[in-house]
Amino acid sequence: MRAWVLAAVCLAACATTTPPAATGQAGAETPTVPSLGDILQASPAADWRPLDPQNTIYMDLPQGRVIIELSPQYTPNHAANITALARAHYYDGAWIVRSQDNYVVQWGRDENEPAGYGEGHATIGAEFSRSRRGVSITRLVDPDSYAPVVGFAGGFPVAAEGDETWIAHCYGVVGAGRGDTADSGGGAELYVVIGQAPRHLDRNVTTVGRVIQGMEILSTMPRGTGPLGFYEQPSQRTPITRVRVEADIPESERAHLEVLRTDSATFRAVIDSRRTRRESWFLEPTGHINVCNVPLPVRVHSAG
Amino acid sequence: MRAWVLAAVCLAACATTTPPAATGQAGAETPTVPSLGDILQASPAADWRPLDPQNTIYMDLPQGRVIIELSPQYTPNHAANITALARAHYYDGAWIVRSQDNYVVQWGRDENEPAGYGEGHATIGAEFSRSRRGVSITRLVDPDSYAPVVGFAGGFPVAAEGDETWIAHCYGVVGAGRGDTADSGGGAELYVVIGQAPRHLDRNVTTVGRVIQGMEILSTMPRGTGPLGFYEQPSQRTPITRVRVEADIPESERAHLEVLRTDSATFRAVIDSRRTRRESWFLEPTGHINVCNVPLPVRVHSAG
Repeated sequence: MRAWVLAAVCLAACATTTPPAATGQAGAETPTVPSLGDILQASPAADWRPLDPQNTIYMDLPQGRVIIELSPQYTPNHAANITALARAHYYDGAWIVRSQDNYVVQWGRDENEPAGYGEGHATIGAEFSRSRRGVSITRLVDPDSYAPVVGFAGGFPVAAEGDETWIAHCYGVVGAGRGDTADSGGGAELYVVIGQAPRHLDRNVTTVGRVIQGMEILSTMPRGTGPLGFYEQPSQRTPITRVRVEADIPESERAHLEVLRTDSATFRAVIDSRRTRRESWFLEPTGHINVCNVPLPVRVHSAG
Repeated sequence: MRAWVLAAVCLAACATTTPPAATGQAGAETPTVPSLGDILQASPAADWRPLDPQNTIYMDLPQGRVIIELSPQYTPNHAANITALARAHYYDGAWIVRSQDNYVVQWGRDENEPAGYGEGHATIGAEFSRSRRGVSITRLVDPDSYAPVVGFAGGFPVAAEGDETWIAHCYGVVGAGRGDTADSGGGAELYVVIGQAPRHLDRNVTTVGRVIQGMEILSTMPRGTGPLGFYEQPSQRTPITRVRVEADIPESERAHLEVLRTDSATFRAVIDSRRTRRESWFLEPTGHINVCNVPLPVRVHSAG
């Protein structure tokens, strides 16, 4: 096989969705320029943090496991509601109901199907954005088409304007579907971005977190042929085996993932290395980056 | 099934990849605001153009057909080389060799496999960008993270800086893989963007056109588990049945697709309708758009 085509390119996706952080790309880069893998390998342990088991969701599908990190910092009520719904087994036996190319994959239950909400609720108030007070954003210097401020906070890609900040609709970000009114969502139906960032949804929907592992399972779901990518036949839907909160899972079954702290020196080095491409393959180093193109590294905690 | 979740959202993908342009979304929007479907339905015939059969490629896979429009305006030598390679049956029996999540799907031949180039060449000189002279760009007013000028020309999303312009690496855009040197590409190996726009590849690789139909076949290819998403086993690759130039296909077998002219009044209305979302579902109308989020409508020519 020709190894030479785009061989030196490691994209956001590598480190975002493949724990441990993909260091395999290093070989194709010149030894004098630290690769993304080199930067991560040289990072101090303190620049990483474990996922919070109380806000980490394991979604088991026939194809494998998807792990989602929720953001209590940005959307505390949604994080609480989604974990409550998971504990009520609300999502167990639900379905992937929609797969629209270059947009979203979505899951939920049938409207007429009886479902127990347990300590959770069918709908809760919107959390489209929160106050910037108390939120430290690692800012990007390049302009963004949608917001005056973009960057990273608490491990998530974020945007801000005035006193408001919110998790930006980047690839892999999870949102809570809603109806026509702001407060008609809450997490009983969720979607994940599988294409070009639909940033026009920012502040129109509550973005609750992001996929940490298993993104490729969701992104390759066969596209639905109905309007908006909904499946036309129930048989086309993928069943959700079960959804659990990591805290409820025995230690031995947990994935023990760590994410790079987005306020760390290592993460600033990651941004710099992706913003200006110094590998020999790049004839044009770019010198710019979009918030949705910065990798958010994930690895398996090695000291177990 | 709940129809209410994100039901009013029609994304770029709808009209980009599904001919005829998706008008099914109109029902979920308020009757007083023209939907994307309404705008397209009201368009004069002169705002559409047929694909040029000499620069349109039909790639048949076991899963179905992919149609790619090449850009002789931006990359004349690559368009000529790719059509020559197709006519030499170079791609027939080639393989999808790589599927990297949130990045690219790529196809080509084995390095050691004998292949006939016919009138084409294994490699040709790079066409990373061209002069802006003679190119009329329908510009967007919102800032872009990567280039001072972005917009559309000849049906493609483009960027420009100084006297240079190039097709931007948006979802569905096709590029010619290369090795370490600028002139080591040429179209013998091609890739398509299947995730967040990797704009750092702009001016590093020659972008030759875009997928007009069948994008969902490529975007759902199982991800490769080797480095950079290459398949580890030959058996994991999808074989390419055949690749033909539309001009060489009998009229009766052609798809008869038309694309909306990007210098038309209708296309300006499309941009406006996607930039400022007036449908009742949108509580925040946005008022901004990224070049890779604007739909490029395609339809089947109805007058036969």
